[in-house]
Amino acid sequence: MPNLRTLATAVAITLLASASSGALAANDLLSTQDIAAATKLRDAAMAGNVDENGVAYRLTESLTTEIGERLAGTPPADRAVEWAKAKFKALGYDKVYTEPVSFPLWTRGHEEASVVSPYPQRLVVTALGHSVGTNGPLQGDVVEFADLAALQAAKPGSLDGKIAYISHRMQRFKDGHGYGEAVGARAFGPSAAAKAGAKALLIRSIGTDHDRLAHTGMLDYAAGVPKIPAAALSNPDADLLSHMIARGQPVRVSLDLDCGEHGMATSYNVIGEITGSDKRAQVVTIGGHLDSWDPGTGAIDDAVGVGITMAAGALIHDLHLQPRRTIRVIAYMDEESGGYGGKAYANAHASQVKQHQIGAESDMGAGRIYELHAGVKQSAWPVIEQIGQVLAPLGIATVKTGGGAGEDPDAMVAKGMAWAELRQDATYYFDWHHTANDTLDKIEPAALGQQVAAYAVLAYLSAQAPGSFGSGEMPLPKPGW
Amino acid sequence: MPNLRTLATAVAITLLASASSGALAANDLLSTQDIAAATKLRDAAMAGNVDENGVAYRLTESLTTEIGERLAGTPPADRAVEWAKAKFKALGYDKVYTEPVSFPLWTRGHEEASVVSPYPQRLVVTALGHSVGTNGPLQGDVVEFADLAALQAAKPGSLDGKIAYISHRMQRFKDGHGYGEAVGARAFGPSAAAKAGAKALLIRSIGTDHDRLAHTGMLDYAAGVPKIPAAALSNPDADLLSHMIARGQPVRVSLDLDCGEHGMATSYNVIGEITGSDKRAQVVTIGGHLDSWDPGTGAIDDAVGVGITMAAGALIHDLHLQPRRTIRVIAYMDEESGGYGGKAYANAHASQVKQHQIGAESDMGAGRIYELHAGVKQSAWPVIEQIGQVLAPLGIATVKTGGGAGEDPDAMVAKGMAWAELRQDATYYFDWHHTANDTLDKIEPAALGQQVAAYAVLAYLSAQAPGSFGSGEMPLPKPGW
Repeated sequence: MPNLRTLATAVAITLLASASSGALAANDLLSTQDIAAATKLRDAAMAGNVDENGVAYRLTESLTTEIGERLAGTPPADRAVEWAKAKFKALGYDKVYTEPVSFPLWTRGHEEASVVSPYPQRLVVTALGHSVGTNGPLQGDVVEFADLAALQAAKPGSLDGKIAYISHRMQRFKDGHGYGEAVGARAFGPSAAAKAGAKALLIRSIGTDHDRLAHTGMLDYAAGVPKIPAAALSNPDADLLSHMIARGQPVRVSLDLDCGEHGMATSYNVIGEITGSDKRAQVVTIGGHLDSWDPGTGAIDDAVGVGITMAAGALIHDLHLQPRRTIRVIAYMDEESGGYGGKAYANAHASQVKQHQIGAESDMGAGRIYELHAGVKQSAWPVIEQIGQVLAPLGIATVKTGGGAGEDPDAMVAKGMAWAELRQDATYYFDWHHTANDTLDKIEPAALGQQVAAYAVLAYLSAQAPGSFGSGEMPLPKPGW
Repeated sequence: MPNLRTLATAVAITLLASASSGALAANDLLSTQDIAAATKLRDAAMAGNVDENGVAYRLTESLTTEIGERLAGTPPADRAVEWAKAKFKALGYDKVYTEPVSFPLWTRGHEEASVVSPYPQRLVVTALGHSVGTNGPLQGDVVEFADLAALQAAKPGSLDGKIAYISHRMQRFKDGHGYGEAVGARAFGPSAAAKAGAKALLIRSIGTDHDRLAHTGMLDYAAGVPKIPAAALSNPDADLLSHMIARGQPVRVSLDLDCGEHGMATSYNVIGEITGSDKRAQVVTIGGHLDSWDPGTGAIDDAVGVGITMAAGALIHDLHLQPRRTIRVIAYMDEESGGYGGKAYANAHASQVKQHQIGAESDMGAGRIYELHAGVKQSAWPVIEQIGQVLAPLGIATVKTGGGAGEDPDAMVAKGMAWAELRQDATYYFDWHHTANDTLDKIEPAALGQQVAAYAVLAYLSAQAPGSFGSGEMPLPKPGW
């Protein structure tokens, strides 16, 4: 998933400084040889990823079929670490290694909900990530709120003994920004409900679908506020509950969630490198995240991001295009419960921000890329435009405003790393995101060539650029959705 | 659902006798007054069912919200009987009564499946209707078959100790005929697998979706063959299992189904009548079925059919158009497990076939109607064409070949009752059919006006026709999909 806090708190497009930079000296620009090599990469990626035999699709199929759901800290996630190491090696990466990531382990047990009265019916729910359990079934009358702001306005004590319910529905947009408008209910709703005295929170799933499958995802308990259980209803179940409440009688719900945290666990980011030549101590990072939520097989979130970026790096290797800087493909562990993989990477490499040319992540499913955004120093923008020119035939526009690197690289971006975003068409992404419907069939194999091409070109040309993109030099454009 | 056996065994369109009938005498045709009244009905139905305030939608919303899932013989189905009686009365029907229906009671308990090796993963399954349980978890290596015919060709003993698996995928068509091509796997697969020695059967869900929700529905154990447990995998889970099997290693699956029959139960068809005038002893029947499968709230299958036909009858009453024949709206009980409601009706009224002018049922979801089919004696066809002329502005073509009345009226059709079908666009119906996704949000309120109009016109003009449509006179055109 994309960065929750960024999306929740900064929905409006932030206009970055857009004054045109002065013309660069020719020796600051990418060479025609580099552009030619990148063009070759692009075309090879397109030609090699047209169907189920493409490397990116095969990797995605392998991870979802042989591992499947892989909640960080669970046995399948441990198997995914071994899977990633083996795949990097099989793909010919020059160096494959892991770096430890520690995070709070959370697991889900059974989860049940039902309307007790006046219209007994089962409700499909899923516990929000890192929710406390109910410690056996609890019951309460439901109080509906139109959105998070309405719940936040509830007076202390006004929900004593009640179950709060936020019915706001996420809207569908190509860039997925409806997620940012809606996800606050999931993140901040639980503590808002607890402040008003509620014993539990239900939310309408943060998703654009009409499927009777609930969307999980992280909550964010506020410090000093009692932690209450919180779960998402599927969209049809949210409709059902609202229809019942609209009849005016008290609607009593029973909720039984057997979930909770179990101390800290340690797992690993898995890293594969294509070693650079004259600037090998400097790195370009691309990647995706290896962990997933547990209801689905984590195909769009984010096996495909791992597959695309692994395939992009492998293609550079396969075409014998040794880059000047080292290209690091990172399969992050535990993005989902708070970006722990990205934070661990940033902590481990905090002293090397200047050695990071740029960072990017593929974590918005398998829809085609339509825009390149970047946060680089102004004088490096012409090089981004050169990259954009190689990407333009793929239907990718270079846009100087907005964008963001993604949850995992964001921790390094916060330390000053330059970043890029290859923005994907997310029109349907939030139909399946964090649900049992996150499965392989949601991925169109023919859509992956363009994405492998884009990441390969971005990584390769960033590695070839004569000058720095500005990491460690302030001010860089900040991510701004 | 439509008639399983008809669809499974007679997929090809059967061409009915299509020779043009001789011209009728004017006094055998519907009068201009009748046509004018029907036109008024049509237009009132269209005007009154444009949004969520329409009677048909309100009835559908009420049944799904206040009752929800209603597997025949369970408490919510009993509540649905009371609901239907109350609604018929509230709508002003002249006579409201019930007729008993007996059927084998079947219930579903927990259901779990997983791949044990080589790639441990959960699988989403649902027991097929009236499957025996597994009596605790069972395990077996899976043997995949491309379709039912391939399984039927398996030699006795060849599947000893195995779990058979049919991976055939249903295809999407506007008229839904892919269901007929696929549903044999569900109906006849269990006994075919048992004949070859299998301990259980898995099938790919009979559905056109890509949702991780399995489709239930009736199986049909053959006499004299051991009954083995049978379940459907969701489409993504079927993909997953096939992908694992394609790797060539044995794939071992665990299956745990807690379901089974519990003797006979009795419930009721609920009937509302608009009493006829000079031909009141003759009846026109329309209706839908009151029971549903249990994973969803039974919105498209078939609360909406009940809502549409109840609203159609009510509109005739509201416009004070007392019909010549009695119009009987039947909310059948237990269509799903074998058409028991229709059979009970046919048994109770076996001596009155000639008094039944025509029968029809709305049981293909909420998609718009695009064709009128009918099985009437040749000399009555011109009256069907008159009805068709009133329906034509609704986008409904009158088609003299193919069609069928539906599972419930079929029992009376088998005894010689004339029938009609108002064929609906079923393009998306089998995405949701018999799954948890059968919920209210799948119904477009504005689509219901056309359907209420069509049933009201069909029922009213059939009731007004000067002559018989041929019930009890042989030969009538037989249903033929």
